[in-house]
Amino acid sequence: MIPEKITSIDKLINITSKDMGRVNDLIIQRTLSDTEIIPKISQYLISSGGKRLRPMLTISASQMCECKNDHHISLAASVEFMHTATLLHDDVVDDSSMRRGKISARMLWGNEASVLVGDYLLGEAFKMMVDAKSLESLEVLSSAASIIAEGEVMQLVYSNNINISEEQYFKIINNKTAKLFSAASEVGAIISDSSTDFRNSLRDYGQFLGIAFQLSDDALDYSSTNDALGKDIGDDFYEGKITFPIIAAYRKSSAIEKKVWEELHNKVDKDHDDFNTVLELLGSKNAINITLDEAKKYGQKAIDALQVFPKSDIRDALIEGAHFSYSRKS
Amino acid sequence: MIPEKITSIDKLINITSKDMGRVNDLIIQRTLSDTEIIPKISQYLISSGGKRLRPMLTISASQMCECKNDHHISLAASVEFMHTATLLHDDVVDDSSMRRGKISARMLWGNEASVLVGDYLLGEAFKMMVDAKSLESLEVLSSAASIIAEGEVMQLVYSNNINISEEQYFKIINNKTAKLFSAASEVGAIISDSSTDFRNSLRDYGQFLGIAFQLSDDALDYSSTNDALGKDIGDDFYEGKITFPIIAAYRKSSAIEKKVWEELHNKVDKDHDDFNTVLELLGSKNAINITLDEAKKYGQKAIDALQVFPKSDIRDALIEGAHFSYSRKS
Repeated sequence: MIPEKITSIDKLINITSKDMGRVNDLIIQRTLSDTEIIPKISQYLISSGGKRLRPMLTISASQMCECKNDHHISLAASVEFMHTATLLHDDVVDDSSMRRGKISARMLWGNEASVLVGDYLLGEAFKMMVDAKSLESLEVLSSAASIIAEGEVMQLVYSNNINISEEQYFKIINNKTAKLFSAASEVGAIISDSSTDFRNSLRDYGQFLGIAFQLSDDALDYSSTNDALGKDIGDDFYEGKITFPIIAAYRKSSAIEKKVWEELHNKVDKDHDDFNTVLELLGSKNAINITLDEAKKYGQKAIDALQVFPKSDIRDALIEGAHFSYSRKS
Repeated sequence: MIPEKITSIDKLINITSKDMGRVNDLIIQRTLSDTEIIPKISQYLISSGGKRLRPMLTISASQMCECKNDHHISLAASVEFMHTATLLHDDVVDDSSMRRGKISARMLWGNEASVLVGDYLLGEAFKMMVDAKSLESLEVLSSAASIIAEGEVMQLVYSNNINISEEQYFKIINNKTAKLFSAASEVGAIISDSSTDFRNSLRDYGQFLGIAFQLSDDALDYSSTNDALGKDIGDDFYEGKITFPIIAAYRKSSAIEKKVWEELHNKVDKDHDDFNTVLELLGSKNAINITLDEAKKYGQKAIDALQVFPKSDIRDALIEGAHFSYSRKS
């Protein structure tokens, strides 16, 4: 029986630990460059306590499909590099000063180096994909690369636009977040020469997991603490990102309240008082819980996607991962 | 007989025009996205009168090797996308306000969109490479992607460092510029199933051409006019880039002059008077001509690399391209 709230992915971490050790070694090795600032920035970010969920998905998907070769290691590392490159660029785009509880790379080494080292990691990511010699995997991951960027651009276009539709919001998070989760899982199946059924299930699992993960991320940005989050809560608000809690609250608002929302998002310099008003409005509409319920729905969809697989320890671990996606505290 | 100074690449343009028409169509098609700002920024830059030398190299290399398939078209387009992505990111890194005679994209749409649309184009570039279904080409181009970024990081690290060695300078331009010229030519051979000899020759041709091209770029940045260049002359100096003319002049300088050079490069806000001092110093050491002589040397090396090929119109066109690389006026 699965308890209602699971707030760890220990099972997933344990069951993938041997392969993840090899992934981590490859990651370190591939950041090495005579140009010192490249390994410095890369390792600063990579070793800063991210969950490595995405490469773990590639590894566990390959375990689900009984992979008989070693190429899943380089695909997993390439997925993590794609993610790290995105983080470096995101921090520049969002003017972020914190990431994973540490000062962001751009604050230490500048925007210029963050952009360029991100590009370097993206190049290395593609080199590792090529190493895996699978054109199908390359197709999935290169598509993901442009879809992620497209999602980020969409998010930028819709910033501070309180009238964003729920459909548009889901399009953005599908692209900017769920696509990489989905691709990470799918290539684990592809590289294992799995059946189309298994491949599609893992692709869907990754996609739903990614959506659940992003929804809970959106909730945490208003309900967590700075310490737990490793960055300031309220970043989304200050950066003008309209996320699910806002959409849920806005929809339930009176005409007068809607006017307040609009004014809040039209302000150029949002301050702490504005943020407190937002927290009050969200609370009055139960928006955080609505968001977490939505996350749970997608977590359940992720679990359902795994039904084609026979029961196994690795399947259990992925199910635990899906529960974690919406119940996590950080 | 080849005249001493050739300042056009008309032969190359004519002989590749049919295929380049297809490349251009593919480029436009691949910038389309529902997120309007993506085609807007991409096409703004792509249609702004660049020479399209790099895709032209892929096309002409494939013609040299009598390519029997259509994959050279998508490889050529992917090379142009890689280049365009680099330009978008470079303008952010360099704070540039002009590019190809127009206001730079980042001035019109912001740094954020420039970074992200660059990422999008890089993703699309890799998708087009995958379309060509050649792991060998993918290997060459993905290596190029990370080497280019590494070169850009190196350039950043050495900015305003007047003591940069000639060796380090060549390493930077090899990476940031010559590598893509080289890869663009090499994949034209690879995709045509050419002999190793032909492949290596075209790779070398591209590399030497790229070096010649960058050296003459360095010279033009001090000797051209704003109109011809499509951007302000002196950009390299103001951005703290130590290029070949400076290295050549510094090496020939007296101790007192060296002190002036150092002070000029240590200044945070370089002004027009500083630039005029630089022009005077460069003139007194004949540094522009020394740079152009160096460019010519590499242009000749590029021509020599083509000796393994029998005489043909396309070889003549590439030879003309090599002459153009050091004799061009913009």
